[in-house]
Amino acid sequence: MARNGSSVEKRLIGLADLVIAAAQRRRDPAIRIPVRSLSNVRFNEKKRFIEMGSNTQQRTFFNVAMAKKFMQTMLVADALAELQRAELTTSLREIYYRTKHTIGGSHENTFDDQDESDPIIEDLEVGLAALREELHVRAENGGTVIGPLVVEDDGDRVDCARLGKGGYSIPSIVEEEYLRIKKCSADFVLLVEKGTQWNRLAEDKFWKKYNCVLLTGNGQPPRGVRRLARRLHQEKRLPVYVLVDNDPWGYYIYSVVKQGSINLAFESQRMAIPDAKFVGLSSADPERYGLPRNVGIKLNDKDVARAKELLNYPWFQKKEWQGEIKRMLASGLKFELDALANKDFQYLTKKYLPKKLRDKDWLD
Amino acid sequence: MARNGSSVEKRLIGLADLVIAAAQRRRDPAIRIPVRSLSNVRFNEKKRFIEMGSNTQQRTFFNVAMAKKFMQTMLVADALAELQRAELTTSLREIYYRTKHTIGGSHENTFDDQDESDPIIEDLEVGLAALREELHVRAENGGTVIGPLVVEDDGDRVDCARLGKGGYSIPSIVEEEYLRIKKCSADFVLLVEKGTQWNRLAEDKFWKKYNCVLLTGNGQPPRGVRRLARRLHQEKRLPVYVLVDNDPWGYYIYSVVKQGSINLAFESQRMAIPDAKFVGLSSADPERYGLPRNVGIKLNDKDVARAKELLNYPWFQKKEWQGEIKRMLASGLKFELDALANKDFQYLTKKYLPKKLRDKDWLD
Repeated sequence: MARNGSSVEKRLIGLADLVIAAAQRRRDPAIRIPVRSLSNVRFNEKKRFIEMGSNTQQRTFFNVAMAKKFMQTMLVADALAELQRAELTTSLREIYYRTKHTIGGSHENTFDDQDESDPIIEDLEVGLAALREELHVRAENGGTVIGPLVVEDDGDRVDCARLGKGGYSIPSIVEEEYLRIKKCSADFVLLVEKGTQWNRLAEDKFWKKYNCVLLTGNGQPPRGVRRLARRLHQEKRLPVYVLVDNDPWGYYIYSVVKQGSINLAFESQRMAIPDAKFVGLSSADPERYGLPRNVGIKLNDKDVARAKELLNYPWFQKKEWQGEIKRMLASGLKFELDALANKDFQYLTKKYLPKKLRDKDWLD
Repeated sequence: MARNGSSVEKRLIGLADLVIAAAQRRRDPAIRIPVRSLSNVRFNEKKRFIEMGSNTQQRTFFNVAMAKKFMQTMLVADALAELQRAELTTSLREIYYRTKHTIGGSHENTFDDQDESDPIIEDLEVGLAALREELHVRAENGGTVIGPLVVEDDGDRVDCARLGKGGYSIPSIVEEEYLRIKKCSADFVLLVEKGTQWNRLAEDKFWKKYNCVLLTGNGQPPRGVRRLARRLHQEKRLPVYVLVDNDPWGYYIYSVVKQGSINLAFESQRMAIPDAKFVGLSSADPERYGLPRNVGIKLNDKDVARAKELLNYPWFQKKEWQGEIKRMLASGLKFELDALANKDFQYLTKKYLPKKLRDKDWLD
């Protein structure tokens, strides 16, 4: 497939040209698609993120096993080209519905299930070297931002320091084409796992006192939140600190922000933030901040198994990280950020985070 | 419990006074709590919402079965009073953590699980006739709004018509104390179940052309979204239209917006919008709008059972509603809003909704 710097629309049309050219030469049309399996994914120690290797596979039309998938690829590419031409965005699910029809003179559907169209969109992302956002495919808006940041969205100047405690709802697509970062005078970005703590910090105007941009994705941050953090990091040179629960899922959320994920390895180069820091909760915090054992939650079998998996990931091999995870396993407990409320409703804002930041008490 | 118009803080302190007064008279302290079970809930045909009856039960301290719960009630009331005094809001989970401790000289915890503190907060809501929001207890921010609406949040003037395609993230608590509706020139409110369609309408500036406030709660709308819709309905006299998937869950989402829910019957009087209209998807729409059968999804056993339950609810007894639900059952299919993309990515904005609104094609 085309990998040049041409527009996404041209790259999509290039696929059709390829088929036409093959037909004119009476050849079997074929496209090369990078392999998206684990075998073609590795952690790049130098770049410090998860990336895809260079293995590709051929998808041809005159092949019983591949003909349907080839046809589906063309249908999806056509729908994506329609989005480009009309300057629209849409969801994975709507692309499935858009491209679904019964093939004339048969009872066969082009797609029976979204499970068939989603992987094709991923194939095209990787094959055309275009982020999903550049293909105009969005997820739900899932995050919120507040702080000294001014963006331009659809001609409107949005000052995220003037949105009360509510904040700006982060769109799924925050690429330059859709969202311009006009101004950002913050000193750092704080990405908070859960909405509860984000609300605490917004209510207490933590972002004002510490001059930071406060982001949350209400759990595993959605793509828009990660891309916005990455853009603020890259374009505005802001450090990014990640605040999550002290459990294996919190560690994992941090690691996805930092190194990217195995499933979407192709995107790490534009989503990952290898310099992101883990600011807490650390398994050392309960003792350091005097959290009683009874606000900890016993690790269950799944937690333990997951923590042991993390211990083996190449990006958790640093001494400090091995210590962090093993300390959690040894204590047999996990702690939610919410547990800080045991000390005081504002403990997070007034004690915990100020001390963390002052002491530069984070993991890399 | 006190039910007068005094401040929430005074009502909370009133609980402690009651205990002190009983102790001084050497009596067993007791509080009356309204019964929150199904037996004490009914659909009020005249008010057209689900409300609580007047049954109450006594909770006393000198009673082995009730002593712990009595103590817990006082602890939670104390934490809630702390929130009032400090003018803070927090989450159910943080209240659990705040009030959890080991009772001196024992291994007994005040609370072992959040399942113990949540119902007590509900008891207090009902007993003190205070909305959860008035007790300063918030849920996650879960919704987004865009349109000709200006609110004041924490001293900031937020113009929801000037927030691009992203919109304002609706706080969990939108009571007058926290959010002032400064201006709203819209003609109606459109409450959309899913973020995908909300994004479609925001991108197409549907709210501008049809002069409406666009709300979504990304699924079952959270309390803040419902309260905001209700306030716009009540204070600005705006009709509220609800747009959901055509399945039993969509019907149910609509019915909760309209009549309130059985679980939170106490709140209907301030959350329900009995005049809300169901604008779609209707089971009549696939035929009317030419949606092919293959974009419908077969009803599964759970769907069918749920639809049959709905047929029996008093608020679905109108002829039109019986017809609506029975038509879905007869077709054996449910349809997502996303399926409209089968016609065209902008079909919702350009054809479906304009026709619905022009024809006043909705159910009451």
